[in-house]
Amino acid sequence: ETMEVTLKTEAEAGASGFSVTGGGNEGIFIKKVLKESPASKIFSLREGDQLLSATIFFDNIKYEDALKILQYSEPYRVQFSLKRKITCKEEPERSHSAAQYKKERVRQVDI
Amino acid sequence: ETMEVTLKTEAEAGASGFSVTGGGNEGIFIKKVLKESPASKIFSLREGDQLLSATIFFDNIKYEDALKILQYSEPYRVQFSLKRKITCKEEPERSHSAAQYKKERVRQVDI
Repeated sequence: ETMEVTLKTEAEAGASGFSVTGGGNEGIFIKKVLKESPASKIFSLREGDQLLSATIFFDNIKYEDALKILQYSEPYRVQFSLKRKITCKEEPERSHSAAQYKKERVRQVDI
Repeated sequence: ETMEVTLKTEAEAGASGFSVTGGGNEGIFIKKVLKESPASKIFSLREGDQLLSATIFFDNIKYEDALKILQYSEPYRVQFSLKRKITCKEEPERSHSAAQYKKERVRQVDI
C-alpha cells in the first residue's frame, strides 16, 4: 500500500548532487541522487520524488545567475517575495512605539 | 518618512516585462517595469522593489527549462516542495475513513 505526501525541505544552501527527468504534463522527478551529496544529506531528496516547486533565495546571488533564473522561469507559474520601501503620510499622532513600528515593518501583504 | 514592508505576490503564470539590477551583497532589485506587462499588471512589481526570493512551480515545465533553473540556482539557498510516494505497512485496523486518508495524503512534512 502506498500513499502520497507533500514535503517541504528546509531552506538550505547549495542543492547539488541530483539529476531530474520528466517534464511537461508528466511533471519533473528526481532521477538520481548522489550519496554523500548535499541533495542526499541536507535536502533528503530521493529518487522518484516529484519536484512541485523550487524557491530560490536571492541573497548574495550573482546578477547573471538571478537573470538566468528569471529568464528561464518566465513562461511558468511563479511567486515572488519582495521588500518594498513605502512612503507613509506623516501621522497626526507620532507616539506609536518602536515595537509597533517593527511589527509594521515585517507585515506580509498580498499584492 | 519611509518604511519597508515584505510582500508576497500571488502565484501567477508568466512574469514578463521587467528587468533587474544589483547582485551580490547589494541584493537584486527591480530596475524597470514595462507598463501593461504581466510584471506590472498581474504581479504589481514596482521599480526599486527588492526581490527576496522567487518560487517557480514545475507544473507543465519543459525538462530543459527546469534543468537550467536548477543548475543556475545550485549555489544558492533554495527550498523544494516535493511529492513523495511512501509505502505504508499494512495496518491492523483497516477501517479508517476516506476522509482520514485524504487528510494524510496532503499533510506537510518537514524533511
